[in-house]
Amino acid sequence: MMAEVSPLRFITLEGGEGTGKSTLQHALAERLRAEGFDVVTTREPGGTPLAEAVRELALHPPAGADWSPMSEALLMNAARSDHLEKLIRPALAEGKWVICDRFADSTRVYQSVKGGVSSNVLKSMESTVLGDTVPTLTLVLDAPLETTSGRRSARNGPDDAFEKRATDFHHAVRQGFISLSQEEPLRCKLIDASRDVASVYAAAWRIVSQTYALNEMAG
Amino acid sequence: MMAEVSPLRFITLEGGEGTGKSTLQHALAERLRAEGFDVVTTREPGGTPLAEAVRELALHPPAGADWSPMSEALLMNAARSDHLEKLIRPALAEGKWVICDRFADSTRVYQSVKGGVSSNVLKSMESTVLGDTVPTLTLVLDAPLETTSGRRSARNGPDDAFEKRATDFHHAVRQGFISLSQEEPLRCKLIDASRDVASVYAAAWRIVSQTYALNEMAG
Repeated sequence: MMAEVSPLRFITLEGGEGTGKSTLQHALAERLRAEGFDVVTTREPGGTPLAEAVRELALHPPAGADWSPMSEALLMNAARSDHLEKLIRPALAEGKWVICDRFADSTRVYQSVKGGVSSNVLKSMESTVLGDTVPTLTLVLDAPLETTSGRRSARNGPDDAFEKRATDFHHAVRQGFISLSQEEPLRCKLIDASRDVASVYAAAWRIVSQTYALNEMAG
Repeated sequence: MMAEVSPLRFITLEGGEGTGKSTLQHALAERLRAEGFDVVTTREPGGTPLAEAVRELALHPPAGADWSPMSEALLMNAARSDHLEKLIRPALAEGKWVICDRFADSTRVYQSVKGGVSSNVLKSMESTVLGDTVPTLTLVLDAPLETTSGRRSARNGPDDAFEKRATDFHHAVRQGFISLSQEEPLRCKLIDASRDVASVYAAAWRIVSQTYALNEMAG
């Protein structure tokens, strides 16, 4: 008789900029710790020294040069492979929870909005790098641009011409995350992130506790 | 009626360290220039500012960290994608010759010797990045370790314990390049590089001029 296999405790948070991912990450980690669990919080791109070095190179290329979509996708996956091998897989193997602020879905959505690499190529690269280490739950935070642009401004300074030109881009990213949650409804749960922090957290915690049967586990 | 398509003027030089690739690259480029052609010589990993930055990160990771085989393969391909897009494809499109010191076969051979990534994954990654830009001729320089270890010593200083321990590695690399030329005999031509420079050059030039029908072209 086989023992019942509990789902991998691997949660990713996805969504556009300013949707409240890191706030939610903090709240979920605190709650899980209060339930007595070990929790690792991390982020992408980055999460390990090598992945952070790749992040730096990806975000700040040498002067006058730009990454092509294909090079950028490969770099992001090189960083992710290191992150998985050195931090995520060892933590999961020790029974810890891992909550990651952005993960493979961000590469899928942002690269598909930028264009230049087919979604089949992106998916094949993703599956090569992830192997069996697929998040068991992905919370997709969704909010209209009016909400998130305020949060982005508070973070980045006042809206400027660049920000206004980028509205189409943010719309496409939002739509990309909505499509993702429709394509993979079992793993990806869309959460209305236009509400106050407490309501977003309550919705997220309800999903987490159902997914991992936490009432039973925490007894 | 379709015009006859001449082969892409894309030559790569492969083989272990100390087999004389860069000497041969120089001699072939000079000869082609003497025939009146434009020739671009380049190398991997590297060849463009971004690819050189990735090379630096790949060869010199932050202190205390090592690249996993998968991350390293993705990094090499990120660099290669930039190199192809910014330098190799534009040069070929302008009718120039491109002679590259190491290219995708080096990733195949070195990564397979190091292990950790299946050859199917490596080939799929390679074909995604290369697309149609496959070298039409690959000269594989082969020499016994007694020859190349002398050249490596002259370059790197006297043999040390590390070098001696690495003998198995160099043997495996040599065997990897021999296998490559057996698997793809139309593209990859094995050249005995244990001979003097003039003989190696003469053998290489004979193959180049036959492959590209240069007597007719240079008329």
